[in-house]
Amino acid sequence: MARIYNFSSGPAVLPLPVLEKAQAELLEYPGSGMSILEMSHRSKTYDAIIKAAEANIRQLMGIPDSYAVLFLPGGASQQFAMVPLNLLPAGGFADYVHTGAWAGKAIKEAEVVGRVKVVWDGRGDNYMRTPRPAELKFNPGSAYVHLCSNETIGGVRFPEFPKTNSPLVADMSSDIMSRVIDVSNFGLIYAGLQKNLGPAGSALVIIRRDLAEKTPESGNLFFRYATHMKEPSLYNTPNTFAIYILKLVSEWLAAEGGLAAMEARNQTKASLLYQALDTSPFWRPCARKDSRSLMNITWRLENEELEARFVQQAKAAGLDGLKGHRSVGGLRASLYNAFPLEGVRKLVEFMQDFEQKNG
Amino acid sequence: MARIYNFSSGPAVLPLPVLEKAQAELLEYPGSGMSILEMSHRSKTYDAIIKAAEANIRQLMGIPDSYAVLFLPGGASQQFAMVPLNLLPAGGFADYVHTGAWAGKAIKEAEVVGRVKVVWDGRGDNYMRTPRPAELKFNPGSAYVHLCSNETIGGVRFPEFPKTNSPLVADMSSDIMSRVIDVSNFGLIYAGLQKNLGPAGSALVIIRRDLAEKTPESGNLFFRYATHMKEPSLYNTPNTFAIYILKLVSEWLAAEGGLAAMEARNQTKASLLYQALDTSPFWRPCARKDSRSLMNITWRLENEELEARFVQQAKAAGLDGLKGHRSVGGLRASLYNAFPLEGVRKLVEFMQDFEQKNG
Repeated sequence: MARIYNFSSGPAVLPLPVLEKAQAELLEYPGSGMSILEMSHRSKTYDAIIKAAEANIRQLMGIPDSYAVLFLPGGASQQFAMVPLNLLPAGGFADYVHTGAWAGKAIKEAEVVGRVKVVWDGRGDNYMRTPRPAELKFNPGSAYVHLCSNETIGGVRFPEFPKTNSPLVADMSSDIMSRVIDVSNFGLIYAGLQKNLGPAGSALVIIRRDLAEKTPESGNLFFRYATHMKEPSLYNTPNTFAIYILKLVSEWLAAEGGLAAMEARNQTKASLLYQALDTSPFWRPCARKDSRSLMNITWRLENEELEARFVQQAKAAGLDGLKGHRSVGGLRASLYNAFPLEGVRKLVEFMQDFEQKNG
Repeated sequence: MARIYNFSSGPAVLPLPVLEKAQAELLEYPGSGMSILEMSHRSKTYDAIIKAAEANIRQLMGIPDSYAVLFLPGGASQQFAMVPLNLLPAGGFADYVHTGAWAGKAIKEAEVVGRVKVVWDGRGDNYMRTPRPAELKFNPGSAYVHLCSNETIGGVRFPEFPKTNSPLVADMSSDIMSRVIDVSNFGLIYAGLQKNLGPAGSALVIIRRDLAEKTPESGNLFFRYATHMKEPSLYNTPNTFAIYILKLVSEWLAAEGGLAAMEARNQTKASLLYQALDTSPFWRPCARKDSRSLMNITWRLENEELEARFVQQAKAAGLDGLKGHRSVGGLRASLYNAFPLEGVRKLVEFMQDFEQKNG
């Protein structure tokens, strides 16, 4: 069986050259006589890998030295808890923007730790849009403002980010490194690796050092960012393989032209699909136009039976992972950095054919 | 460069057939058209993998149905915090046995959460032995008793486990599945994968279901075992690759004869090296004989200069990772399940040669 087009929302498609290199090196990492899976995280060889991963990420995103770059376990779900454990002091509160399922989960974990003020909730629009900056009224004195830059389930994103007085914390799991951002506008950025960066099971955390240093020392050592900053990402044995893949992905990103090139390419890919969805009432795109995600494109058909047929026939045509999230149904195409333009063209052709037969 | 003998304490050597299979499948997992690294954790194909991993582990260890088997992020260090967060109620206390660096780290995290009573501390013996069951006087009413079954730094293990009235919690990171144990004597067993089970970045947790169900609901959802039991190990996106490797390792273990066969083999390998260390005063084994680890064998030479020469010349002879932990120095050979007998023979030959030249 040949490799198919994988529209999965995550874990998701990785660049083929990354997979090929990982495969070639899997028995013997060059010069080491062992697999990367067997290598001590304290070895000189591994030290060079983890340092290169960090340096590449700093270069690609333009991360100032005043920020730490950490590789931590557990993906975004663990960060939903770690963010308030570190940044929400006793007696304080944090502002949260509620844009969908992921923002909602972050709010739930924060409410366990302290006081949360939800400054905007998209429920009235069924989470099919994000707020415009002018709609957001932040509360003076909040410990931080939290938002999710891109919601994979609704298929909405912040096309631009609000200005905040308190540190802005963003869950960028599903659009990190898909566009150029100014890191210095954020206090903390976190992202599970499994969409744009690498395999599942780890998170990338970019944190302004002074914020981590303010964390009260009363909590568990393992859940404090400061612990992982002292000996960067090596307080415990990290997910050595995921960091290795992340290094390969970062090299691929640089070779492809960096984040500006990715942003242009992602715009092209998403536009192609949105144009197809906008040409005929047969297709019913979900997200409001001004909030449309470039990563996760969601739409419905007239009924669920037709949607099921679409998913099944697309899969038979080598287009897999097009089923919407089980909580909302419908259809979804995830077009992360590594997803090739040819795959979008193939999908659009398939859609034209499907509409002719079923429209 | 050919594969060398890797004595690293973890991440550590994996079975060659596991690496070969992972390599062969890395671009296209059979029948899926994609890499295991790109595969949705909600797909049917992945569901079969994670269920097989759990079933194989249950079979190999004889785990009763009254226990949950979970794959959680972050290795043992995260469990040092999660165990007391889940099992140490407000106003209660837990008994801890202090056998070395790892037990010490577990104690430190538990003290953040609640009251800890250290029932035995090996400091007086420089952590070069574990207590005999008769030395342990547990406190009535403890929420649980915690011990580390094998300390990688000192190179000591519990040859047998104490009987306890409170649930026995064991960090088995460095000797899980290296010997036959009776799971029903334990309340909770946890282990980072990166020594006997797979790559770094995840933990295996085996927990008596009734214990998880007693956890207070006040804490963060993500850090509660009960959360991960409801939808087994799929509350969040797990470390899909590590679980896949763990499945391959469990298949290898079964094919090799299971844990009884491993225990016999580990006994043979360790005896061969301990015999060599006991033949001449040139070698100075560290651990007391009744506490010697079969996994991590530690010894010293007359001085550090000689130890450094040993490490360097051994590495040149294709025997890597023999340096002791940076906190104690000396020499250490880690002989996990996947470490081949031929490698121990090679080391013993090298040692004889080294003694002749330097003795």
